[in-house]
Amino acid sequence: MSRRWDTGRTEAFSDGVFAIATTLLVLDLAVPESEFHHLWHGIGHLWPGYLGYATSFLTIGGIWLGHHGIFRRLRYANGTVIRVNLLLLMAVAFLPFPTRLMAEAIHDSDAERAAVVFYGIWLFVTFALMSALWGAILRDRQLLKPGVTDQEINAITLAATPHTAAFLGATVLAIIFPKVAAFGYLAIAVIAVFSARGEEATGTEPAQGSN
Amino acid sequence: MSRRWDTGRTEAFSDGVFAIATTLLVLDLAVPESEFHHLWHGIGHLWPGYLGYATSFLTIGGIWLGHHGIFRRLRYANGTVIRVNLLLLMAVAFLPFPTRLMAEAIHDSDAERAAVVFYGIWLFVTFALMSALWGAILRDRQLLKPGVTDQEINAITLAATPHTAAFLGATVLAIIFPKVAAFGYLAIAVIAVFSARGEEATGTEPAQGSN
Amino acid sequence: MSRRWDTGRTEAFSDGVFAIATTLLVLDLAVPESEFHHLWHGIGHLWPGYLGYATSFLTIGGIWLGHHGIFRRLRYANGTVIRVNLLLLMAVAFLPFPTRLMAEAIHDSDAERAAVVFYGIWLFVTFALMSALWGAILRDRQLLKPGVTDQEINAITLAATPHTAAFLGATVLAIIFPKVAAFGYLAIAVIAVFSARGEEATGTEPAQGSN
Amino acid sequence: MSRRWDTGRTEAFSDGVFAIATTLLVLDLAVPESEFHHLWHGIGHLWPGYLGYATSFLTIGGIWLGHHGIFRRLRYANGTVIRVNLLLLMAVAFLPFPTRLMAEAIHDSDAERAAVVFYGIWLFVTFALMSALWGAILRDRQLLKPGVTDQEINAITLAATPHTAAFLGATVLAIIFPKVAAFGYLAIAVIAVFSARGEEATGTEPAQGSN
Repeated sequence: MSRRWDTGRTEAFSDGVFAIATTLLVLDLAVPESEFHHLWHGIGHLWPGYLGYATSFLTIGGIWLGHHGIFRRLRYANGTVIRVNLLLLMAVAFLPFPTRLMAEAIHDSDAERAAVVFYGIWLFVTFALMSALWGAILRDRQLLKPGVTDQEINAITLAATPHTAAFLGATVLAIIFPKVAAFGYLAIAVIAVFSARGEEATGTEPAQGSN
Repeated sequence: MSRRWDTGRTEAFSDGVFAIATTLLVLDLAVPESEFHHLWHGIGHLWPGYLGYATSFLTIGGIWLGHHGIFRRLRYANGTVIRVNLLLLMAVAFLPFPTRLMAEAIHDSDAERAAVVFYGIWLFVTFALMSALWGAILRDRQLLKPGVTDQEINAITLAATPHTAAFLGATVLAIIFPKVAAFGYLAIAVIAVFSARGEEATGTEPAQGSN
Repeated sequence: MSRRWDTGRTEAFSDGVFAIATTLLVLDLAVPESEFHHLWHGIGHLWPGYLGYATSFLTIGGIWLGHHGIFRRLRYANGTVIRVNLLLLMAVAFLPFPTRLMAEAIHDSDAERAAVVFYGIWLFVTFALMSALWGAILRDRQLLKPGVTDQEINAITLAATPHTAAFLGATVLAIIFPKVAAFGYLAIAVIAVFSARGEEATGTEPAQGSN
Repeated sequence: MSRRWDTGRTEAFSDGVFAIATTLLVLDLAVPESEFHHLWHGIGHLWPGYLGYATSFLTIGGIWLGHHGIFRRLRYANGTVIRVNLLLLMAVAFLPFPTRLMAEAIHDSDAERAAVVFYGIWLFVTFALMSALWGAILRDRQLLKPGVTDQEINAITLAATPHTAAFLGATVLAIIFPKVAAFGYLAIAVIAVFSARGEEATGTEPAQGSN
C-alpha cells in the first residue's frame, strides 16, 4: 500500500516535459509569405500568437515553480503522486494545442469565443491537476521531509487556490468578452509566476557561513 | 566480456527521449480552418487524435514507470542492456508515427483497419522490447544491486507479461473490430500505468525516522 | 524577502530549453521538391537557413556557456534570479521564430531589411536578459559561493557587455546593409562562444592529485 | 590557459541535444492521404524514411555511447573541449536535415545521388568531430581521471577511426551506387553501436561486494 518511488527521475522527466512543451510553442508562429511586402505589419499582425506564447510559457513556468517548490519538500513519492504527476504532465504537454487554436481563431468572429473558452478550460484543468498533486501528497504526510512545517504546508495550499479559481472565472468571462479574457489569462499567469515562493532563508538548510 | 556502463547517463538520455516522444504527440493535433465556423464540433471531431494522444502518452508513461523501476535496481549496465535500451528508445521515439496514422485513418473506412493494426503491432513491439531489456538483465544478475530480492525480481517479470500479451490480443481483435481495439489499447495503457509498482516501504532504504 | 531556491532544477530546466531551442532550428531547413533536379544547387540555395542555424545555435551556445559560468558560482537563487531566468528562457525559446523569418526573407528585397533588423533586436534582447540575470545576482551577493573573488565577478561583468553592445550595433547596421549585418551577427556569436571563460585552474576546487 | 569547466552540465546539455535530435527524426515520416486506400502499401513505400530514421538514430546512438565513454573518464573539460563539443552537437542537431533529404530524394533518379552523398558527408563530419573531441582531450591529458590507463586511451583512439573512415568510403561509393551506399551507412551505424566498449569489470570502480 505505502509503496515508495524516489523523486529524482520524476523531476528529470517532468523538467523534460515542461521544457519541451514551452519550446514547442514557437513552432506555431509564422508570418505567411503573402505579408512579406509589409513585414513589420505581418510581424505585428501575429499578436495573438505572441499572447498565446507568453501566456502558455508563463503558465508552464508557474507550474514548474510550484512543482519545484513541492518536490524539494518530498522525501519520496507514492504511487498516487506519481500517477497524478503523469496526468499533470499530460495536461501540460497538451497545452500547445489549445494555445495554437486560440492564436489562430482570435481573428475569426465565429471561432473566437469557443477557442478562448477552450483555452481557458485547459489552463484551469492544468492548474487543478497541480492542486490535485498537492492534495495527493497531503493525504500521506509521511511523504514530506521531516523539516517541513505546517506553516509551509498551508502557504503552498493557499498559493494554489486563487490561480485555479481565477482561470475558472476568466473562462466564464470569455463567454461574453473573449478578447478581454485572453489578456486576463496572461495576467493570471504573470501573477502565478510572481507569487510562487521560495524557501525561507531560515529554513531546513544552512543559510550562510558553511557550504 | 563483462564490461560495465554506469546507469546515470542512460537514465538521463532515456528520460529525454521519453519526455520528447510524449510531447511531440501534440503537434499532430490541429483543427482545419474550414471547421472554424463550428469550432466546438471541430474540436470534438478530432477525438481520434485525443485517443491516440492519451494512448501513446500513457503507454510511454507506463514504459517510463517500468524503466524507472528496473534501473533503480541496477548497480550498472552491461553492453547488451545498453544496446537493448537503445532499441527500446528507438521504438518509443517512433511511436508518434503510427499514432498519427491511426488518428488520421480512423475516419477512413479503407485505411482504418490497417492503421489500427499497425499501431497495435508497434505498441506490442515497444512493450516486448521492455521485456527484452529485463530479460537481458536477468541473464547477468551481477548487474542488480545486492539488496534486490527474488520476490521483487519475480514481481517485475510477472508485471510485464500481461500487457505485452494484451497488446498482441488487441491487435488481433483490430483485424475484425478496429474501433473497439483502438479503445482497447487505451485501456491496456491505463492498466499498465496503474499496475506499475513502487518499492516496498520496508525495502532497501530507510523508510522513516532518519533522512 | 530573501527567499531561496536551490539551483539544480533551474539548471536542468534551462539546459532542457537550451537543448530543444537549438535542435528545433533544423526543422526550418527544407529543399522544395521543385529543386530536386538540381539538388546541389537547391542545397546551396538554402544558405540563409544555414546562416540562421549557425548564428542561433552559437548564440544559444554562448548563452549556455555564460549561464553555466554563472550558475556554478551560485550557492542558491532568489526569487528575482529565478524569474529573470524564466524571461531569459522565454527569449531563447522564441529565437527560432525570428531565425526562420530572417532565413525566409533574405531572398526577398521587400522583407529582407525588416527581417534582419527584427532578428538582431531579438539577439540583443536575449543577451541583454543574460546581463540582467547577472545584474540580479550582483544585487544580492550572498547568493554567490563564498570562494568567488571580486576578480571573477568583474571578469563576468566585463565579458557580457561587449556582445550585447555589438548586437545592438549590428542591428543598426542592418537598417542600411542587411546582408552584411546578418553575417555580422554570426561573427558576434562566434566571438561570444570563444570568449566565454572557464574557471581558473587555481580556483575553488581541488585542481590535481585527489579526485 | 588551463581553464577548467566541470562536465556535469555539458553532459546534461549534450544528452538533451542527442535525445531531441533522435526524436525529431520521426516528424518526417508521413503517409500521404492519397495512399490511404492501400495503407499497407503506403506504409511500405516509406522505406527510405525508415532507413534514414534507423541510420540516423543509430549514428546518434553510437555517438552517444562514445561520448559517454569519453566523458566518464574526464575529471573536467577545458575551453577547447567544450567548444569542440558544441560543434559536435551542432552537427548532430543538423543531422535530421540530410536524413530527411535522403529519404525524400531516394525515389527520385535526379536527386538520389546528391542526397545520399550529402547525407554520407554529414555522417562523416559528425564522426570526425567526435574524433576531434577525443583529440582535444589527448592534447591535455591532465583532463583525464587519474585511473585512466594508456591501454584504455589507445582502445578509444582505435575504436573511433574505422567508422569515420568507413563513412568516408561509403560516401565515395554513393557517387556510383547511391542505394547500396545508403544501406552501407546503416551497416556502419550498427557496427558503431556494437563496437562501443564499456569499462573493464576490473576497472577503477569497486566491481562487487560493497555499494
